[in-house]
Amino acid sequence: MQQVDIGILGATGMVGQRFLELLANHPWFNVTWLAASDRSSGKPYGEAVRWKLSTPLPERYAAMPLSPAVPDEHTPRVIFAALDTDIALELEPRFANAGCAVISNSAAFRMEAHTPLVIPEVNEGHLSMVRHQSWADGGYVVTNPNCSAIGLVLALKPLEATFGIESLFVTTMQAISGAGYPGVASLDILGNVVPFIRNEEEKMVAETAKLLGGVSDAGESLPLALRMTAHCNRVAVEDGHTESVSIKLRKPATAEQILECWQQFRPLSGRGLPSAPEQPVEYLHAEDRPQPRLDRMRGGGMASVVGRLRPCTLLDWKFTVLSHNTIRGAAGAALLNAELLHQQGRLVPDRAARGAR
Amino acid sequence: MQQVDIGILGATGMVGQRFLELLANHPWFNVTWLAASDRSSGKPYGEAVRWKLSTPLPERYAAMPLSPAVPDEHTPRVIFAALDTDIALELEPRFANAGCAVISNSAAFRMEAHTPLVIPEVNEGHLSMVRHQSWADGGYVVTNPNCSAIGLVLALKPLEATFGIESLFVTTMQAISGAGYPGVASLDILGNVVPFIRNEEEKMVAETAKLLGGVSDAGESLPLALRMTAHCNRVAVEDGHTESVSIKLRKPATAEQILECWQQFRPLSGRGLPSAPEQPVEYLHAEDRPQPRLDRMRGGGMASVVGRLRPCTLLDWKFTVLSHNTIRGAAGAALLNAELLHQQGRLVPDRAARGAR
Amino acid sequence: MQQVDIGILGATGMVGQRFLELLANHPWFNVTWLAASDRSSGKPYGEAVRWKLSTPLPERYAAMPLSPAVPDEHTPRVIFAALDTDIALELEPRFANAGCAVISNSAAFRMEAHTPLVIPEVNEGHLSMVRHQSWADGGYVVTNPNCSAIGLVLALKPLEATFGIESLFVTTMQAISGAGYPGVASLDILGNVVPFIRNEEEKMVAETAKLLGGVSDAGESLPLALRMTAHCNRVAVEDGHTESVSIKLRKPATAEQILECWQQFRPLSGRGLPSAPEQPVEYLHAEDRPQPRLDRMRGGGMASVVGRLRPCTLLDWKFTVLSHNTIRGAAGAALLNAELLHQQGRLVPDRAARGAR
Amino acid sequence: MQQVDIGILGATGMVGQRFLELLANHPWFNVTWLAASDRSSGKPYGEAVRWKLSTPLPERYAAMPLSPAVPDEHTPRVIFAALDTDIALELEPRFANAGCAVISNSAAFRMEAHTPLVIPEVNEGHLSMVRHQSWADGGYVVTNPNCSAIGLVLALKPLEATFGIESLFVTTMQAISGAGYPGVASLDILGNVVPFIRNEEEKMVAETAKLLGGVSDAGESLPLALRMTAHCNRVAVEDGHTESVSIKLRKPATAEQILECWQQFRPLSGRGLPSAPEQPVEYLHAEDRPQPRLDRMRGGGMASVVGRLRPCTLLDWKFTVLSHNTIRGAAGAALLNAELLHQQGRLVPDRAARGAR
Repeated sequence: MQQVDIGILGATGMVGQRFLELLANHPWFNVTWLAASDRSSGKPYGEAVRWKLSTPLPERYAAMPLSPAVPDEHTPRVIFAALDTDIALELEPRFANAGCAVISNSAAFRMEAHTPLVIPEVNEGHLSMVRHQSWADGGYVVTNPNCSAIGLVLALKPLEATFGIESLFVTTMQAISGAGYPGVASLDILGNVVPFIRNEEEKMVAETAKLLGGVSDAGESLPLALRMTAHCNRVAVEDGHTESVSIKLRKPATAEQILECWQQFRPLSGRGLPSAPEQPVEYLHAEDRPQPRLDRMRGGGMASVVGRLRPCTLLDWKFTVLSHNTIRGAAGAALLNAELLHQQGRLVPDRAARGAR
Repeated sequence: MQQVDIGILGATGMVGQRFLELLANHPWFNVTWLAASDRSSGKPYGEAVRWKLSTPLPERYAAMPLSPAVPDEHTPRVIFAALDTDIALELEPRFANAGCAVISNSAAFRMEAHTPLVIPEVNEGHLSMVRHQSWADGGYVVTNPNCSAIGLVLALKPLEATFGIESLFVTTMQAISGAGYPGVASLDILGNVVPFIRNEEEKMVAETAKLLGGVSDAGESLPLALRMTAHCNRVAVEDGHTESVSIKLRKPATAEQILECWQQFRPLSGRGLPSAPEQPVEYLHAEDRPQPRLDRMRGGGMASVVGRLRPCTLLDWKFTVLSHNTIRGAAGAALLNAELLHQQGRLVPDRAARGAR
Repeated sequence: MQQVDIGILGATGMVGQRFLELLANHPWFNVTWLAASDRSSGKPYGEAVRWKLSTPLPERYAAMPLSPAVPDEHTPRVIFAALDTDIALELEPRFANAGCAVISNSAAFRMEAHTPLVIPEVNEGHLSMVRHQSWADGGYVVTNPNCSAIGLVLALKPLEATFGIESLFVTTMQAISGAGYPGVASLDILGNVVPFIRNEEEKMVAETAKLLGGVSDAGESLPLALRMTAHCNRVAVEDGHTESVSIKLRKPATAEQILECWQQFRPLSGRGLPSAPEQPVEYLHAEDRPQPRLDRMRGGGMASVVGRLRPCTLLDWKFTVLSHNTIRGAAGAALLNAELLHQQGRLVPDRAARGAR
Repeated sequence: MQQVDIGILGATGMVGQRFLELLANHPWFNVTWLAASDRSSGKPYGEAVRWKLSTPLPERYAAMPLSPAVPDEHTPRVIFAALDTDIALELEPRFANAGCAVISNSAAFRMEAHTPLVIPEVNEGHLSMVRHQSWADGGYVVTNPNCSAIGLVLALKPLEATFGIESLFVTTMQAISGAGYPGVASLDILGNVVPFIRNEEEKMVAETAKLLGGVSDAGESLPLALRMTAHCNRVAVEDGHTESVSIKLRKPATAEQILECWQQFRPLSGRGLPSAPEQPVEYLHAEDRPQPRLDRMRGGGMASVVGRLRPCTLLDWKFTVLSHNTIRGAAGAALLNAELLHQQGRLVPDRAARGAR
């Protein structure tokens, strides 16, 4: 089977590093092009990067030269983009207009009318929006949600589908890796909590409604009507966002029904996507779980790990959600989107088809 | 002016240590008796204690012998109790029945019908419950709230008084010192969040309602009718509980009115209580405050520090509260209760008056 | 190929947990018996253990009942022992006298005259001491070093072999997992350094000399004459002991020679031991490495990772050593010893041979 | 008594903040001028600074406008400089040439022939070097040592004076605040050790020799002949550098003699310098002290705290030293130098005297 060539934009950042780690032995994808948004162009990746993962940098990536972040004849047709929002706003359109599939982890286009914001287990159908995008040469942009929204929405989706969700309260305790590198200064977080992450609360609310909503015939997002409030905090955790959640359902549900609902939620089962976890929502019965240090790697870092389901006196139920913020919450999310598109035979843009749109 | 002799039960624990630190130069109180609930009786305090505060142990306490935890002729009439609940259930009645004022930080009797649960700025009037207690020899028990409830209730009180509070959502991120010593194992909390603290959520809800409620003519607690839910988490912070709060008010309020309400909340102003902070609720305007490492010592560790007031799409308003869990949340709380009683001339139990009850 | 049945003593502790993690898919060994030194006998392992590793507990171990810590007819002939020293002093002889191979991680018998203290890459020959042991029924005890000694000695061995080591200075910064669970209280180590670990400095010095020394004809240890001093500190690191080392060599050596020496040190190469790292001493050239968070998993947690080789004005050379304290420093060390013994065909004690000794 | 006007260069940095904290209620000095090396000139200090201390920013400083970092007619004659080395190289000479006393915490001029590098308790006499400086208008530069050298040298000085020190081994475990703000990225240090701090080992060795050495008749430094090696590490501690030290003395000494030596070392006793600690070297007898979290504030953060004195098999004695790196190791060190100069009547430069040099 022929592998698909992959390029990575923003390869030296924290999410870029996770892309390389996750793609090191990927059965379908082969990284052939690395670019960084800074002056490191031309250098071998291993010299330019400050590798911060606990798995060693694979040697073949270390020697790969960094390309400039401009599309040219060497650029693969599929680009994983791990860029800061402001840079993504500038660069992602260039690659989409050059006929690339831009599988983006940035916030730049997530809320655009025709840009699918996708979690494969949650809203695969939103990929149809792509048809309404108007980049040149068959290029398109597909995005994945913010690291704080994705684990939450995985846990909410089966409840929304079965009972309906009326309102939602969430407080996050987010890991430092979510802010990139150098990101959070150690003097700000060691032995501390920072009760503020810029724009995070707004993103969580808007993205949750889009993810759980539908798509109009015109290919536009129809967000779910949901009353939701979010409090976002940064804590001294390396990886793994923990969230305290209360929800009000539209139909009554027992604890058993909710647990059953999560247990049976396996929409990708049997689809053979390499990065899809067996059990996308894993419920832990121990009274003091999930915990980021112990549970973030469930499902290879791709599971939403839930625990502490109990009644909420204000809304209906409360529970704790955990997910790995740079795997399921970033690089792994984009990778799974690409796997889904590949399986559907539409990952590599079809230049010829462009007229048909 | 003559100082009041004070005894400390549970003197070697974390809260006991804070009592000694706070009483080291107290203008009204003089520690003359120390007891620990373990086998350390007879040893000098300095040998028995594992002193964990960053201020050195005052030398005169180091040499003081530990007494057995039984009331006798050497026991002062005023006892600060810093005991675990199960031990408090056994020991506090003995001291109350021996005619002592038991100023307790434990949870053992907080929710008893005639036991005042008091924050001086919040519900001074609840002290009248003491008249309905029936310990021997004029003894009585006065308690202060759980470390997670006290900062929250300080911030809520002026809002309740002015606008009424209908419902309330709170997620805590609590410091390790709240669990005592050795308490939380480092393997459980370093780089981690533990989304569970036994009985904490229940305590927060019950105590908040009692603190904000009234007292019947029969001296019984009339809890406030309040819909409240709590999520309690442990984080890798040494001291200072941070809480994300959303509230629904009974009357509409603007942000300005709420800030004004907190600003003007100074019920103890001019009363001259040594441990009362000038400004019991301090609001910080920086977008990323309060933070435990930076702000827990506001008001000498006795302030409830608030920030991030902003609209809540689900309830009305949301904000962050911080307070020092072993000062305002424990030893300082009990101390302020004792100062209030002393100023009212009723700290030292009046044995003669006993018949009058 | 038939697998060897393995029992684990102290299975619920931190090192016991690592044993199970490392043995979960072992090609040669099969865990069939678990015992814990406490009251948990009879319970399923999954209920009795507080599993603290970030890899989930393998399900087949979860259901396995805990046996009492006494040898009987169900006890496998090969026992991995992960016990505290005082308990090991009592239990390990019982199992050895019942004809078991006791592959011990405890300090109890490490310094005994006829007990081999072995690192396979360092002093394989010391295993011959076993012949001089006098337990009943062919039983024997083989030990591995303290977690702070093992990474150091791996790095020293090729230098000792090539240049000779005259004296040695080492300061350790040791991870919390080295103290077991609950072990180090979070109030003692969060944002802190504790410059003391009981008996650790003494163990490091004694074990280093024994490991680098020889064996007399009578099967007794002939420790290396080495002037060595150790400073042991505990730091807020989860796993991985970091050590600052200065050494004085007997023969002059250049930096290049030392690096070459480490590079070529592969005494187990081609031997096919499943847990042996390809490169037992890995040198990192980056100026700020090794670091425990990033590098402890090199060689599957079995490598001694070295960096910062530079001249020492007091002795000859200085460098930094890191190794994973519960893998290479404990469970992995014992496992590698067992693999070595198994390959030599003498892991399972030969009861018949007993008379021959 | 008239207070001396003080200016602060680099006022917004971590050391600048400590200067303001320490000077807030200083009996002799009055801060009248603040400058920062960045674009914040003109802004009120409270807006420009990211205040990171746990004591609130004093209000009168918050309102003070930041001046440009150039000397003019408003600049006080005494400047505390808390600048990065490269900026100090440029700015400090300008202020010295404008006739200012530059009391510098930077490394820029510490090792210059005629620049005194002073710890008041250690080498007061080195201040005489100032006479040989040739800045215009009576200006001069006096420096204090690196944060990692100062606590160490305080502990060494009485031993050097009494027994002579021949050689010295030190491994540091340094706090994050030593790197300024933002300084160390949290991803680099949370749960980690970084075994490298640029130029730190070289500075420690050179400064220790200069501090313990003498001054020639020509006013040049005569460094002590000392064989010393340093290993510098960064650990996840907020404030307080911990150091493992071994020393070889020129004359034999017993433990009692060494303890006595430290106990009696009070060279500033009775001198009335406001920031001088009663006991510059405090010895703690507990087996596991000093610890940064518990002991860094001894002597108001100005003491060198020592513990664990025990024999060293390689050199003679080993022990642990702790000192607060931004108080005794930076702002407090400069402040004490200024107090010493003020008491000698030579803090404010004498413009008239300039010709006399």
